[in-house]
Amino acid sequence: MLNMMETITGMNQEMRQVALQHIDTLTKPLGSLGRLEELAGDLAGMTGNAFPVVTPPGVLVFAGDHGVVEEGVSAFPQEVTAQMVLNFVHGGAAINVFSRQIGALFEIVNVGVATSVTEQAVVNRHVRFGTANMCNENAMTRAEAEAAITAGYEEAMSIMDRGAKCLVLGEMGIGNTTASSAMLAVFSGMSVEKVIGIGTGISEEQLLHKTTVIKRALRNRMPNRKDPLDVLMKVGGLEIGAMAGAMLAAATRRIPIIVDGFICTVAAILAKELCEATTDYMICGHRSTEQGYEVASAYLGKKPLLDLGLRLGEGSGAAVAFSVVHSASLMLAEMATFQTASISGKDK
Amino acid sequence: MLNMMETITGMNQEMRQVALQHIDTLTKPLGSLGRLEELAGDLAGMTGNAFPVVTPPGVLVFAGDHGVVEEGVSAFPQEVTAQMVLNFVHGGAAINVFSRQIGALFEIVNVGVATSVTEQAVVNRHVRFGTANMCNENAMTRAEAEAAITAGYEEAMSIMDRGAKCLVLGEMGIGNTTASSAMLAVFSGMSVEKVIGIGTGISEEQLLHKTTVIKRALRNRMPNRKDPLDVLMKVGGLEIGAMAGAMLAAATRRIPIIVDGFICTVAAILAKELCEATTDYMICGHRSTEQGYEVASAYLGKKPLLDLGLRLGEGSGAAVAFSVVHSASLMLAEMATFQTASISGKDK
Repeated sequence: MLNMMETITGMNQEMRQVALQHIDTLTKPLGSLGRLEELAGDLAGMTGNAFPVVTPPGVLVFAGDHGVVEEGVSAFPQEVTAQMVLNFVHGGAAINVFSRQIGALFEIVNVGVATSVTEQAVVNRHVRFGTANMCNENAMTRAEAEAAITAGYEEAMSIMDRGAKCLVLGEMGIGNTTASSAMLAVFSGMSVEKVIGIGTGISEEQLLHKTTVIKRALRNRMPNRKDPLDVLMKVGGLEIGAMAGAMLAAATRRIPIIVDGFICTVAAILAKELCEATTDYMICGHRSTEQGYEVASAYLGKKPLLDLGLRLGEGSGAAVAFSVVHSASLMLAEMATFQTASISGKDK
Repeated sequence: MLNMMETITGMNQEMRQVALQHIDTLTKPLGSLGRLEELAGDLAGMTGNAFPVVTPPGVLVFAGDHGVVEEGVSAFPQEVTAQMVLNFVHGGAAINVFSRQIGALFEIVNVGVATSVTEQAVVNRHVRFGTANMCNENAMTRAEAEAAITAGYEEAMSIMDRGAKCLVLGEMGIGNTTASSAMLAVFSGMSVEKVIGIGTGISEEQLLHKTTVIKRALRNRMPNRKDPLDVLMKVGGLEIGAMAGAMLAAATRRIPIIVDGFICTVAAILAKELCEATTDYMICGHRSTEQGYEVASAYLGKKPLLDLGLRLGEGSGAAVAFSVVHSASLMLAEMATFQTASISGKDK
């Protein structure tokens, strides 16, 4: 585990300044491209390149199941995870549509689906058949938590080896907002009521039940907030660990990461707890409508780019946000300067 | 003028419902794609097609000058309008970069630059050499106001004839936030203080001066709020009239319009005043940081898709927002249904 993190250093602040200074010479009023300018500066700082390239992006979707669904915390049955994995293979899910739109390399990785998945097109990094029910026992062992992180790390390395210049991370796992809320409650120290939400669409009554279930799990498991792996193994999810591992890999390679909604943001917090400098490579793509998202993004210290009311997961919000990140990089690389375009400056 | 508007009818609500019902069968929790779902429904209603196509988009940038700049209301000198027109021709402006990113047809149209523009690549629809200073006389004659609207209408028809399936409208004109604020004050009935902003970047002191100038112009010109052409001719701009004309053309052809920031939104209000049904074809792309934008978008009854702090104009915010509109159309056309993907529904 440790050798994954030892090569991660923070953003190249000097290159960020070089880019920001260049942006101030481009043919537009100072600061008039708002967050695209900040974003372009950040991309330069992340990549160490004054003219960062973010295409093609690589989309990695990690799938895993959650034993806690037997407590009745989700609107959908567990079998939907495996069914959606097949949907990803056949190209019919939202993330497939948006991946094609942005010309992404795409990979679906099975780290912990509860049933056997034999499709050739699914990358098999199976750690176990879903987590255990965290109300009764640890979600996974410490070795399994490490294996999930390693799977994400290695698959991210692989897609970057194949040319991905920016990572879009997503997940599929019925029940994973429950695990994410439990992890977030531990890391943030907030009450469960502040970090939960309706997930794929449960009722008010079911939401109360979900709260009770998470509280019971936290009381029974007592995760150690100072030990990120302990939190992951006791109340986390295999796909959440894998996403965190992928983020560590991207940070190692100085590749920007577009963080998706609620669950992915909790994975980003896990990565931050494992190695603080990883956050320098994160861009929050889309504000989730899940109530806990505000706590999660604030804890990460990031403001999402988009707010379109998405709450689907799969990396869909991050993939839609990619176009904005792309715009920022193109602006930096392709706009003319006042000097080359012979344009007059401000009057005063 | 009147024959432009007589064929504009509102959205096809039936087709909108067909699309929304189809969206509810797609492999995702109900409503989980938020505004992309509303947007996809609207696109179906606009185009009258259950699976609307928005590519390629057509970007039209209209350029015109403003006599009121002699009052010292802008941060940049008037010659920048013509210089930026050349920058658009050479492909170095922000809107060029974003147009290439989205694979758009692109046209820069001169409706009223103050100096002679001879570049072949600029579409010449010149009405007059900039408006007159609205503090002293009407910005243009009624015939010129009609000519500007007609120029926009016809150029939009032309780019749609060449295949544009969605219009992105933008403008270039030093001083045009002043004209836009004046028009907005008239249409909205709000005080000038509520509808002004810093434009390309003036100081607090200059902003006070800009307010005084607009108030003087409104007092001297007394535009008739009930007569949109009177407002345009007295305190408007040639490029603002042209954008409104382009919107009328798009609505006639049932083609979606992505409205850019502050100035374009005021043009949208002008189009609405000329023909209310035109608003059914408008999508607000990006929230301008210009203070008056809130008044303008509220008056239009629209909420922008993006909020990235842009205040550049040229159609840049609308062009960046196009990718989101594209995502919505692709989601509708390409996602699998629960039935075709054999995925289980909700438990309860």
